Amino acid sequence: MNPIEPIVIGTVRELQSWADGMRRSGRRVALVPTMGALHTGHLSLVRAARQYADRVVVSIFVNPTQFGPQEDFERYPRDLSADVQKLKGVSADVVFAPSVSEMYPDGNATWVDVEGTLTEGLCGRSRPGHFRGVTTIVLRLLHAAKPHVAFFGEKDYQQYVVIRRMVRDQLLDVEILAAPTVREPDGLAMSSRNAYLRPEARQQAIALNAALHDVRQLFRSGIRDARSLIHAARRRIRKEPLAEIEYIELRDADTLEPIIEVEGRGVLALAVRFEGTRLIDNTVLEVG
Amino acid sequence: MNPIEPIVIGTVRELQSWADGMRRSGRRVALVPTMGALHTGHLSLVRAARQYADRVVVSIFVNPTQFGPQEDFERYPRDLSADVQKLKGVSADVVFAPSVSEMYPDGNATWVDVEGTLTEGLCGRSRPGHFRGVTTIVLRLLHAAKPHVAFFGEKDYQQYVVIRRMVRDQLLDVEILAAPTVREPDGLAMSSRNAYLRPEARQQAIALNAALHDVRQLFRSGIRDARSLIHAARRRIRKEPLAEIEYIELRDADTLEPIIEVEGRGVLALAVRFEGTRLIDNTVLEVG
Repeated sequence: MNPIEPIVIGTVRELQSWADGMRRSGRRVALVPTMGALHTGHLSLVRAARQYADRVVVSIFVNPTQFGPQEDFERYPRDLSADVQKLKGVSADVVFAPSVSEMYPDGNATWVDVEGTLTEGLCGRSRPGHFRGVTTIVLRLLHAAKPHVAFFGEKDYQQYVVIRRMVRDQLLDVEILAAPTVREPDGLAMSSRNAYLRPEARQQAIALNAALHDVRQLFRSGIRDARSLIHAARRRIRKEPLAEIEYIELRDADTLEPIIEVEGRGVLALAVRFEGTRLIDNTVLEVG
Repeated sequence: MNPIEPIVIGTVRELQSWADGMRRSGRRVALVPTMGALHTGHLSLVRAARQYADRVVVSIFVNPTQFGPQEDFERYPRDLSADVQKLKGVSADVVFAPSVSEMYPDGNATWVDVEGTLTEGLCGRSRPGHFRGVTTIVLRLLHAAKPHVAFFGEKDYQQYVVIRRMVRDQLLDVEILAAPTVREPDGLAMSSRNAYLRPEARQQAIALNAALHDVRQLFRSGIRDARSLIHAARRRIRKEPLAEIEYIELRDADTLEPIIEVEGRGVLALAVRFEGTRLIDNTVLEVG
């Protein structure tokens, strides 16, 4: 396939009019929402999206409302022209790169919340307001791009489940799909925040995937209880002197309710800091 | 025009598929959200909608989440077959009459909020959570019917402004329009809740419109200050022994910020109870 040059669109009105045209001519549209600083993980989402749609829109928007006041909004990596080049390589059709004022109009006062277990635990605990920012912006992006299907990475597992819940509850006619986490050769889950890691921390960060590997091995050997599975992960990660564990938890994979044993599908999710850089990863554990 | 029989649809999926078909064939769709118990005011919204669209959907859904625990959700009037007959008379194309579980799916956890001045004052003060229920359900109805335009009554002025804000903020590609309040011959604004009024209260309730009439006369004579305009309305309503004033306020017609004087466009809005039945009304005052 010849790489095509994506159209770069900056306004909601222009994107909606493009999407209307696609829909009128019977073409299926996919959206891949990102914050830019694209890596192979994002590009694999675009490739997955191509399987489900005739046209793929990739949005690039570093959403201020999902960052806490002490978080890395200001220093979050931004390089639109490099991102557009990468997207050209995977034949994305449209890059939607709006300004903050385009996504948060003058007088903005509206928020979308998913309440309860889905947003209260795991990343919700240490990042209050984070999911409110995510659901609010994702619904806006879905309204702007009018896709038939939208893709999210399984690495942000809680985000995926929260967005799926929000779209179902709000009766929006969009399919929400997740694509598998893409990893570096040594197993570290790809993330734009990996760029913050100094070499020593980068080396120690492979413990996350190694821990999940240990968990899966235990699970395959018949261990189902949260205590043992979490303990295995904790033991592996604690070997790394720079690792500060924020949480390691076992939850129901759909409701994110805490479970004491995997019966149907569980997810073991973890967040660990290395010298201030917060990394997350997870593995889904399915019985049978 | 020959009255046509509206299609009655009960599920979101069926409505979305109907709307997709209309959009594919280039037809414009209008939505008129109602809680049923239709009166001439609702029917005038349907007629207004016909001017803007090829097909008109009227939703009939008594939304539990916009009623407070002490409010009239249980006794709110419901008569679907009478409503369908009335809608046949104004050639509505679709009546969307979903169940509560259709609009609030299993595991429902999502809310849409407009925060700040728009929802805090006026009806928001005595009805905490009311607008949260309204914005959450209206966005769902807009997702279900996929209209190009949706119509709301000016009688619920604050509701109209709140919904317009929500739709703008969430970047939803739907035009939100308001149609003028329809009144009984004696001036009382049409409302499904008028049916609760006993004869004496019904007679005294004309004071609301009479008060707004006094306010407009003062305004035309050059009086612009909130104090005088509110005083005139209060004086007229206080003449009625059964009237209990909840609020009479002058606000900016767009932002709903309190104002001490009308400069551009103001709205004088009021809520009054008669033997427990809460009635609202308003008038927009425009300089020049």
